[in-house]
Amino acid sequence: MPGIFITLEGPDGMGKTSVLKALLPKLTHISQRPILETREPGGSKIAEEIRHILLDVNNTQMDDRTEALLFAAARRQHMAEVVEPALAADQIVFSDRFVDSSVAYQGAGHEVGEQAVYNLNLFATKGLLPDLTLLLDGPVEVGLQRIQKYRQNQNDRLDQETLAFHERVRASYLRLAAKYPQRIVVIDATQTLSDVVSACQSQLIQHFPELFKEAFK
Amino acid sequence: MPGIFITLEGPDGMGKTSVLKALLPKLTHISQRPILETREPGGSKIAEEIRHILLDVNNTQMDDRTEALLFAAARRQHMAEVVEPALAADQIVFSDRFVDSSVAYQGAGHEVGEQAVYNLNLFATKGLLPDLTLLLDGPVEVGLQRIQKYRQNQNDRLDQETLAFHERVRASYLRLAAKYPQRIVVIDATQTLSDVVSACQSQLIQHFPELFKEAFK
Repeated sequence: MPGIFITLEGPDGMGKTSVLKALLPKLTHISQRPILETREPGGSKIAEEIRHILLDVNNTQMDDRTEALLFAAARRQHMAEVVEPALAADQIVFSDRFVDSSVAYQGAGHEVGEQAVYNLNLFATKGLLPDLTLLLDGPVEVGLQRIQKYRQNQNDRLDQETLAFHERVRASYLRLAAKYPQRIVVIDATQTLSDVVSACQSQLIQHFPELFKEAFK
Repeated sequence: MPGIFITLEGPDGMGKTSVLKALLPKLTHISQRPILETREPGGSKIAEEIRHILLDVNNTQMDDRTEALLFAAARRQHMAEVVEPALAADQIVFSDRFVDSSVAYQGAGHEVGEQAVYNLNLFATKGLLPDLTLLLDGPVEVGLQRIQKYRQNQNDRLDQETLAFHERVRASYLRLAAKYPQRIVVIDATQTLSDVVSACQSQLIQHFPELFKEAFK
């Protein structure tokens, strides 16, 4: 695949959305290749319908493996309709969450099995993995406090997890980073937003020097 | 798992539904253990919602791997809510279609890959496979003619496949039967309904002599 595929990952409340919002305008300085910011299941009717089943608070009977299969199905459809065409057109694609989220949340959080969920997702992505993954890491309590501030009572089905669940998610992310050090870079998310954005910039420049040098001048 | 799990499989139009309708009343002679006739995604709200996405004629953008993942998700949920509790309660469960359908239709029909779809479904069933599978087999043309008679214009998204697709499905079923001869028995579905039912009966008696002998007296 041509194009460059970058994902942002991390436990809830680590600031992925804020980081993307600050980072991406800087990349618009690059004129040669369009940049696509995407987030599953965005831009696909079928994937949105799958997401609806996943978030529905009434679906209390949802089996953990069903959840893993549905996330993989929504991912496959989003890949087919959005990510693969963009990469084929040689675009730079930034995705908010991807395969690592499923391994951490369903594989470790719900204890379905990290390797089983990883295999499932390789089927869904046809083996495609990001060129670079920025993992925003920090203590679970910090993340959960941040989330509670702005979510209030608007929780969906996926927000009803325990502290132990979130600890398993964080530990799994760090295991993935240790296992795939070429692909996954850990960024300390307890820094100020501006420092986190700078750290992400440095990693991008280091991994894709010819592409991003101009953008960050 | 206690209980006995039997599946009926075969290309479209091979008479699975008619065979079940004739066969199951005979089994009610057995008083010791309840018999559950089930069909995916029956009896599960979540599985029905997934099925709705699969059948929707407007979902023309459906990727073949998404379809395979959604079938596996619906199957997992149906297993968790219906089949596993019934088997745990030592019931006899008859299912109209199961894992082999996915291998044949998505794996071979849509050419997603038979082994990949098989693996996906072992994840969905937690490795559980039927104790016995009755495969109703016959020429694709015969099956399609039978279907057209009663379906008329009421086709859903899954009914819009080519003859070559159905030939791949049939060939895949026969490959599965050759690969798992202990589990899968091929029944000639071009016989009269009464002969097909008799052939199924003979197989059941042969595989579970202590259970079914009384029923078929």
